[in-house]
Amino acid sequence: MPNEGGPIGAPGEEELIQALFRGRQALPEEVRLGIGDDAAVLAERVGGDWVAAVDSVIEGIHALPGSPPEAFGWKAVAVNVSDLAAMGATPRHALLAAALPRDMPRDRAEGLATGLHEALAEWDLALVGGDTDATPGPLTLSLTLLGRLESDDPVRRSGARPGDRVYVTGTLGDAAAGLTLLSEPPEQWLPAYDWLVERHRRPRPPLAFGRSLPGFASAGIDVSDGLAADLGRIAVASGVGIELDPQALPLSAPMGEWAWASGGQARRYALAGGEDFELAFTAPTGAFEALHRAQYATDTRCSAIGRVTPERPGEVFDPGGEILTGGYDHFPASPEDR
Amino acid sequence: MPNEGGPIGAPGEEELIQALFRGRQALPEEVRLGIGDDAAVLAERVGGDWVAAVDSVIEGIHALPGSPPEAFGWKAVAVNVSDLAAMGATPRHALLAAALPRDMPRDRAEGLATGLHEALAEWDLALVGGDTDATPGPLTLSLTLLGRLESDDPVRRSGARPGDRVYVTGTLGDAAAGLTLLSEPPEQWLPAYDWLVERHRRPRPPLAFGRSLPGFASAGIDVSDGLAADLGRIAVASGVGIELDPQALPLSAPMGEWAWASGGQARRYALAGGEDFELAFTAPTGAFEALHRAQYATDTRCSAIGRVTPERPGEVFDPGGEILTGGYDHFPASPEDR
Repeated sequence: MPNEGGPIGAPGEEELIQALFRGRQALPEEVRLGIGDDAAVLAERVGGDWVAAVDSVIEGIHALPGSPPEAFGWKAVAVNVSDLAAMGATPRHALLAAALPRDMPRDRAEGLATGLHEALAEWDLALVGGDTDATPGPLTLSLTLLGRLESDDPVRRSGARPGDRVYVTGTLGDAAAGLTLLSEPPEQWLPAYDWLVERHRRPRPPLAFGRSLPGFASAGIDVSDGLAADLGRIAVASGVGIELDPQALPLSAPMGEWAWASGGQARRYALAGGEDFELAFTAPTGAFEALHRAQYATDTRCSAIGRVTPERPGEVFDPGGEILTGGYDHFPASPEDR
Repeated sequence: MPNEGGPIGAPGEEELIQALFRGRQALPEEVRLGIGDDAAVLAERVGGDWVAAVDSVIEGIHALPGSPPEAFGWKAVAVNVSDLAAMGATPRHALLAAALPRDMPRDRAEGLATGLHEALAEWDLALVGGDTDATPGPLTLSLTLLGRLESDDPVRRSGARPGDRVYVTGTLGDAAAGLTLLSEPPEQWLPAYDWLVERHRRPRPPLAFGRSLPGFASAGIDVSDGLAADLGRIAVASGVGIELDPQALPLSAPMGEWAWASGGQARRYALAGGEDFELAFTAPTGAFEALHRAQYATDTRCSAIGRVTPERPGEVFDPGGEILTGGYDHFPASPEDR
């Protein structure tokens, strides 16, 4: 007899858990067959190339152990939406591989599913494939996103050219500050606490703005491992240098409050903090007007933070010539290294 | 300084490990952009609907701890090829989410990659997306496969009709016998040992035969959780009964040898053993000739093992009316339950 609300590894819980991670929305017309058969079937249609990306979130690496399951489910979707946003693509379909710890209580699994489905609904995604296993290991959600590219050309990392300007959406470092606040709770109440923690837990990549990138951007990437590290990838892929003005990095007001109250280093967080899931991109100076139209149309703030140089290919440096590094290492030797 | 051949979680190992799981073959023309950017780009082309499936293999669940990494990498691909084969589809592109234990030695990671790339080459698949993390948990490979469907109609689980015959490819129970042999090594040498263990470790789903299924099959599924359990899914989805003749289940000669030597129950393994990755399908009697042509063309043996009935919808039973059950439970309460 199935137990009620027991750990997901208990007998009889399998089907209940699998039902949690099925699609909850009506499938769009192009999905001829969703979850429930051996594979999903997506109708061929004229509508641009397909785009595909996979990214995992793992408890203990991308979220603190014991953090709210709803936020974890949300994040599994958001980190992938961010990848497609950076290409200028529109995500359409998701396939989920969920590895749930055997001793996870069912109500935590339900919270996980709630956050996941909230995020799928937020970005209008159909869940067309799924595989759920109970494992002895940490909670891991791997999501594959399939999307469409309406433009003929995706925004690649390799398209930056000398003379282009460098931009970033939103504000930087908030997610890393939120993670620090969760790891080392402040002694007295900080008005910025909730907002910064939410930036860490429930990233909202600027997808609508991302879709406009092919109209003006020469290269783009999502800021997942830290601005300096991610711009470094554009520099390497494009064979150019990137001169970045640390004074120009966009900081939020809560970030300023936290830095002031805690002695935190706002600019270091903005440069090296991971998981902001904003978009960093380069654009030629002639694209200025199209860029501004896209900002107004999607209510997205962009900041000019640097320029592309023919010198020092593969490097990111400040106006004084100092190399700027930093960013998340997803293979830390110990937690202290992160 | 990077260490040489240390655990994958050690500093400096990240890029080496990620390089292992990049594509090693030339990308087919339709892949405009592979691993190395935020997402892969697949060119739109006329060539049938897309098919997508995801499946994970986890050490300790789908393979014994410490088993050869090459076989584990192979299996991650094979279990997904099996899903697409059951739809009558041709797999084309793969996206991999790899969760590798932090203390995994680099040579094991290299073995894993070797097996993975061998299987990708075997079925002519391009690796177009990847995400690799070092985790504190068990080795987990989640693969998403994208494929094309040349027929207008995929083979679904829901198409079986009363009067259809039930067939299965290859032989059954071998993989489960191989797993038993690994778990409880025989006291004296058994000639069948290597072959049965190989059936467990390196499944070879009959993909070429699967591609011919849309020409004659009314319903189909891959035998992953055990024949009775998987045919039960066809029975439920189609709203029909399935009468199965246990005497007709195809057994291999090594299976006969093992059963004789060990007192093993060959027919129980054939009925309930998991992970054979053969194809079970139903076909109307009029499809007999097309079915035989496909067998000869792809050198695949099929056995008639039962018939579809209008009575007892959702059930699988023997000619005496006894319900046939069994199969793998991927959420075992304890290892002994499996």
